[in-house]
Amino acid sequence: MISIVLLGAGNVASHLYKAFHKAEDVTIKQWYNRTLEPIEGYNNEVSITNDISQLVEADIYILAVSDDAIAQLSKELPFENRLVVHTSGSTSAYDIDKKNRRGVFYPLQTFSKSTDIDFSTIPICYEALIRTDYSILKALSKTITNKTHKINTDQRQALHLAAVFVNNFTNQLYRVAHEITESQGAEFDILKPLILETANKVQELSPYLAQTGPALRNDKKTIKRHLKQLEKEEHKAIYELLTKSIKKTHSVSFKHKKKKD
Amino acid sequence: MISIVLLGAGNVASHLYKAFHKAEDVTIKQWYNRTLEPIEGYNNEVSITNDISQLVEADIYILAVSDDAIAQLSKELPFENRLVVHTSGSTSAYDIDKKNRRGVFYPLQTFSKSTDIDFSTIPICYEALIRTDYSILKALSKTITNKTHKINTDQRQALHLAAVFVNNFTNQLYRVAHEITESQGAEFDILKPLILETANKVQELSPYLAQTGPALRNDKKTIKRHLKQLEKEEHKAIYELLTKSIKKTHSVSFKHKKKKD
Repeated sequence: MISIVLLGAGNVASHLYKAFHKAEDVTIKQWYNRTLEPIEGYNNEVSITNDISQLVEADIYILAVSDDAIAQLSKELPFENRLVVHTSGSTSAYDIDKKNRRGVFYPLQTFSKSTDIDFSTIPICYEALIRTDYSILKALSKTITNKTHKINTDQRQALHLAAVFVNNFTNQLYRVAHEITESQGAEFDILKPLILETANKVQELSPYLAQTGPALRNDKKTIKRHLKQLEKEEHKAIYELLTKSIKKTHSVSFKHKKKKD
Repeated sequence: MISIVLLGAGNVASHLYKAFHKAEDVTIKQWYNRTLEPIEGYNNEVSITNDISQLVEADIYILAVSDDAIAQLSKELPFENRLVVHTSGSTSAYDIDKKNRRGVFYPLQTFSKSTDIDFSTIPICYEALIRTDYSILKALSKTITNKTHKINTDQRQALHLAAVFVNNFTNQLYRVAHEITESQGAEFDILKPLILETANKVQELSPYLAQTGPALRNDKKTIKRHLKQLEKEEHKAIYELLTKSIKKTHSVSFKHKKKKD
């Protein structure tokens, strides 16, 4: 049985709380937040506190707080030589005060307060500065997901950056599509199955092999008509840049490309 | 019972053939292609031909051929006053020779030869130049999907353009993410659940409300670090343009934005 203390009350903290609460082989010994209000609804399930001097002993302390708060909060911890991890994709484990053993427990997913999350499908990337701490972090990950990944800092920061492309930037492309359809009174809803299929396709196929469309085919007529159709300069710029990017990705081996479309 | 003749043997034609073959309330009376080789495997299921003068009578003729071939093929049809539709997202119905009644039967999805398609989830957008042809096109759509949409040309062309953003351009963002993770020896696979969740999220929520991340939060520190991390100028340009686009989308009503992250 692994014992943990959870610190923070944002989206990641709340979702982790729910996942650990349901999980076997892990006990949440305490939930700390600097104000009690966001966590006091869980008072009947778990010991809560807003007094950092009252933190109890546990195998792992999880700082599920904003990137900027990690260093300061870790300094305030009233103990030494225990395992303390943060949940950030981009912050160094060295940001945690060195009086404790340091590590990272990074669930790679987009969290909304409102949406319930099935943690079993979420990859957890863990990192430790001391080699002997890997096994307990792996075991902790395994209590809530099958997708556990031991990674290093460069890999984690690459994943965090890549996540911005596949999540925030992709979502912005959906938004542009929404604007384009709305401008002609067409329903954005009609695109939803295509959005899903596009995401599904790369679960099996590499994005390279999954590519189709006018840029890949170098279909100048369609590209020209699309650019003419686009009313906003901002949309034109995105169209041009991503068309150029697709062409660049596929030009070198264009002749050997399997045609999928 | 609606009778159809299918013309063409590319991805769209093949997938339509399979869908209509399984469907009730529709008979494929003939499958035409200018060469028999790609369709002769279906010889035991359907009458096939490569001789356009031998086309039989049917309620609807479906030209599932490349955009450039529509006009010429429609000219060669040896009959008049019958309903002829193409399956293109961007070609005008007026490209079809005017000796016949003209329309469009546009399935909005990405088709790969290898992947089997469940047509029941694919939206079909139909269009007719003569009002009385709408009902049979709607009925034909309904034989293979529940998602049928009567649209006009502007709407169809907006959808076709928007589809490039949510499909080809999104896929290119996946590709960039693949390059970023690979450059640090991280597994692209770790991003796959996030890719799916991003697509799932906008099935319920608008892309506007679904947005999260550093650009939305105007988190200059993270944006600066990300830009420093990116090794390729092309990736930097995409990062900068889409960050700008997210900021623009959300700046006006930034104060009223529901925080989801």
